Amino acid sequence: MSIDYQSLAVRGVQALSPYQPGKPIDELARELGLNPADIVKLASNENPLGPSEKALAAAREALSELCLYPDGNGFDLKQALAKRFGVDMSQITLGNGSNDLLEVVARCFVSSDSEVIFSQYAFAVYPIVTQAIGAKGISVPAKDWGHDLDAMAEAVTDRTRLIFVANPNNPTGTVHGQEAIQSFLDRIPASVIVVLDEAYCEFFEGEDAPDGLKLLSRYPNLIVCRTFSKAWGLAALRVGYSFSSPEIADILNRVRQPFNVDSIALAAATAVLDDEDYLQRSREVNAKGLRQLEQAFERMGLPFIPSVGNFIAVDVGDQAMEVYQSLLKQGVIVRPVAGYGMPKHLRVSVGLPEENEKFIQALEHALDAVNRGE
Amino acid sequence: MSIDYQSLAVRGVQALSPYQPGKPIDELARELGLNPADIVKLASNENPLGPSEKALAAAREALSELCLYPDGNGFDLKQALAKRFGVDMSQITLGNGSNDLLEVVARCFVSSDSEVIFSQYAFAVYPIVTQAIGAKGISVPAKDWGHDLDAMAEAVTDRTRLIFVANPNNPTGTVHGQEAIQSFLDRIPASVIVVLDEAYCEFFEGEDAPDGLKLLSRYPNLIVCRTFSKAWGLAALRVGYSFSSPEIADILNRVRQPFNVDSIALAAATAVLDDEDYLQRSREVNAKGLRQLEQAFERMGLPFIPSVGNFIAVDVGDQAMEVYQSLLKQGVIVRPVAGYGMPKHLRVSVGLPEENEKFIQALEHALDAVNRGE
Repeated sequence: MSIDYQSLAVRGVQALSPYQPGKPIDELARELGLNPADIVKLASNENPLGPSEKALAAAREALSELCLYPDGNGFDLKQALAKRFGVDMSQITLGNGSNDLLEVVARCFVSSDSEVIFSQYAFAVYPIVTQAIGAKGISVPAKDWGHDLDAMAEAVTDRTRLIFVANPNNPTGTVHGQEAIQSFLDRIPASVIVVLDEAYCEFFEGEDAPDGLKLLSRYPNLIVCRTFSKAWGLAALRVGYSFSSPEIADILNRVRQPFNVDSIALAAATAVLDDEDYLQRSREVNAKGLRQLEQAFERMGLPFIPSVGNFIAVDVGDQAMEVYQSLLKQGVIVRPVAGYGMPKHLRVSVGLPEENEKFIQALEHALDAVNRGE
Repeated sequence: MSIDYQSLAVRGVQALSPYQPGKPIDELARELGLNPADIVKLASNENPLGPSEKALAAAREALSELCLYPDGNGFDLKQALAKRFGVDMSQITLGNGSNDLLEVVARCFVSSDSEVIFSQYAFAVYPIVTQAIGAKGISVPAKDWGHDLDAMAEAVTDRTRLIFVANPNNPTGTVHGQEAIQSFLDRIPASVIVVLDEAYCEFFEGEDAPDGLKLLSRYPNLIVCRTFSKAWGLAALRVGYSFSSPEIADILNRVRQPFNVDSIALAAATAVLDDEDYLQRSREVNAKGLRQLEQAFERMGLPFIPSVGNFIAVDVGDQAMEVYQSLLKQGVIVRPVAGYGMPKHLRVSVGLPEENEKFIQALEHALDAVNRGE
């Protein structure tokens, strides 16, 4: 008797398509026989600066204890986060990247008969964690590529348990100011959990810069998720964190795996919070790189979505996949976003000036080749 | 209006008690004002040897890429595992520790109306992942502290979706030979997934030593889970792996988080597989330490459960918690197992000879003190 194990999987999992990450450098190198050092990857919104020296030193020191389990409570990191952000340690939940937290929140509050709301063009993990539970995802049409917060509030039904709001949003780079977020939260019943995913918040400063932390005391249904993978430059280590009421944090902490963040990650993240200079340089390099890319797109007559993140989505036309493939052959990895319903766009992460320049030249070459029908 | 968020959590989560890890050294040091270096932790079945030099070197090298996301496919590690164990890469799923895999398997195949079978006194994570889904856990009474495989087979109903078998078992250290496991699998319908959790398999060698890998081709419903946290000495990094049919691995790989194993972990685990000498020393130190502990228990007249793992459960009597507390005050951390339904036992991990000796002396002192009613 031959059994179809696919049919034995729970309903949500049967229909699940996994997350498609950016192509790793080593994979492209293997496929094309290229030298990894010659490849520029601008596909995963990684920090181009290289790691913080403080994070590196702490990680090196932590290596001596590879045989010991991590501190499952993440005491030192929570203490450092609490101090930096003026919250209580009991409000913090640590995750194996913020992906882990997005999933844990869904598993805590969403059943197969629930609805989960997110925006069109929002982070792919929202529909994935919804689907894995077998719940119904409600994708609300975007407005000018960003979240249509009014429409999202109107989409709430008595089955809605969770709303994901990415602010700034990935892959579009759009953002809502503090007032807009607050007006939105005012319209959401307190029985519906709202995840404000601020993975890219460090790149956007200024008067109207949104800050979910300031809203926590007013909205008990709010969970603010952040990450060390972007501005803090620790994507390799997988550390995310959330702030919420202690009551919600207690629920999340029950469901997360007991050792979900590893020892090296805990040590490096704790140390990097002290490296203000690194954060400042991350912001400066990103701001300059964004301008460099925007100017090139303007020169090339390519429409782009103005971004406050460390990436930018550019409209390269109907043959975006051909352009993507041509870039790959030239050793430049960017991110196709057809899976996000944006078939004409490519998402480019902001690199160092020379990386951006290599991408720009490769893009010009790719567009020429595609237009010539090569 | 004040909302009780606990009541909004999904049913399974409402009743969930999280995993209680061994007390971390730093936590005890903070509580008692002790010097961490003076504390001996024999509470989490960690490898007392300190890390493999090969693993350390690979981890150090990988630190240069802290800003980049891990290879979500874990190509190098899967290749090394495939080579070592003679399986195909498509049969492998990597986890953030084997805990991650145990959870992912449950989430793939178990619904809230399913039953999950495990043994009394088995690893606490089995009932926890079952409860988180809201499924019904069937705890089958143990036989001589070990799994009663006949009774477990008889417990299968048409709602059973998953059976966890720990072999060797934690926290009892009991083991079933290959023939017993095979007879058991023969009795289980192919539509029921069996997880054979071999986290401690490397410590038990010999003719009748069980080996789930040899059973994979015969039982398409079998998933063999292993870990780098024990004999391989990488508990800090959280790397587990499973072998199954490619079809089941494909399902598991959809549900695991895309970057569930971090870059340092992937590098160190890949390298340590090459460090045969380290594995051999782990086994030798463990075998000697087990004898040292058994002899001490015999001398002290304490019943213990013969173990093939890197830990041993010893019966210290009705006042086990007082003994545990007395050990803590002496700077020795072991593991109370009342939560496993073993209120008279303490589980002691095998340490280096001097660590075992410190524990033995502290235990003698603790028993004296408790018997004197202090």
